[in-house]
Amino acid sequence: MVEVRRGRARSEVTRRAILAATRDELTAHGYDRLSIDRIAAAAGAGKQTVYRWYPSKVALVADCLLADRVFDGVAPVADTGDLVADLRVWLRAFAAQFDRPDTAAFIRAATAAAAESDQVAIRFYEQSTAAAETALAERLRAGEAAGQLKPGVAAATAQSLIGAMLYRLLTRQPVTAEFADQLVSALPVR
Amino acid sequence: MVEVRRGRARSEVTRRAILAATRDELTAHGYDRLSIDRIAAAAGAGKQTVYRWYPSKVALVADCLLADRVFDGVAPVADTGDLVADLRVWLRAFAAQFDRPDTAAFIRAATAAAAESDQVAIRFYEQSTAAAETALAERLRAGEAAGQLKPGVAAATAQSLIGAMLYRLLTRQPVTAEFADQLVSALPVR
Repeated sequence: MVEVRRGRARSEVTRRAILAATRDELTAHGYDRLSIDRIAAAAGAGKQTVYRWYPSKVALVADCLLADRVFDGVAPVADTGDLVADLRVWLRAFAAQFDRPDTAAFIRAATAAAAESDQVAIRFYEQSTAAAETALAERLRAGEAAGQLKPGVAAATAQSLIGAMLYRLLTRQPVTAEFADQLVSALPVR
Repeated sequence: MVEVRRGRARSEVTRRAILAATRDELTAHGYDRLSIDRIAAAAGAGKQTVYRWYPSKVALVADCLLADRVFDGVAPVADTGDLVADLRVWLRAFAAQFDRPDTAAFIRAATAAAAESDQVAIRFYEQSTAAAETALAERLRAGEAAGQLKPGVAAATAQSLIGAMLYRLLTRQPVTAEFADQLVSALPVR
């Protein structure tokens, strides 16, 4: 029993070392040029050990980003009663994340991984993106209930706000506070 | 002179064969599992020839998609005088493209390539995506001028409409006519 536990603990240490090495590799070389050889060497593990845990590059990067909780910390959208002001504050903070070079690099790696694999896309969505979408949609629905927003648009609007930021990131346009404000300004508020 | 021309023609034939093989490879195996070995074999070219033309997988896929004009044929948005109806027609057609499995696979490959490479992202944007964005923004601006849309929102709205579709594709949610209609319904029309 003790031996099994020790084996498990060792495995977990190796897995964490692999994920830490992957994070460094992503920062230094990006997703496209990521090398399993370098990651194995940096983690002090055999290449076969890496492949035993992670059969593909996509699976490795996905787990690295999710383990890092890169997309955690999605704040709820405040409800001060002023829908436009609340959305502006939240979207500006969200945009600021997208505009940081390190976060932007991680979001691009996650996007590449999600673009390539259905399984990874669904994991990312369920474990990270959906939280931002839900936070936004809930605040928008409260706005609808308060008569401050056209009824029935909350779900699609939450997706298009996040989609707009992602589009800017992918087309290499800055994701600024001004852009966040423009998005809020383009909502059907009342 | 004739020899040079023949050499050029031969090169061009090889390049087209490589791109055609890449297209087949993308359809059969997807971006992540794309194999340069298989592409070279299918094109009847040496692996070194492929690398001489295309130093990276990203460059190869980008050129394949752009050569195929996968993203061409972005129709101008009709102007019948009815902004909501015109946007609905155009966005439904755009959504139908996103929802076709073959086009969806190409857009995902393009997204993965753009996520990984600044250079590819900018090429895609300039040579393809910007056309859709411009078509939408122009129609939205005409709507603003006609007093049918809140002034000043055209540019951000064009980006968020396209971004919303991309977001659905990446999170593996269907890009339906209903979703297109919801997006139009969430615009600040007057």
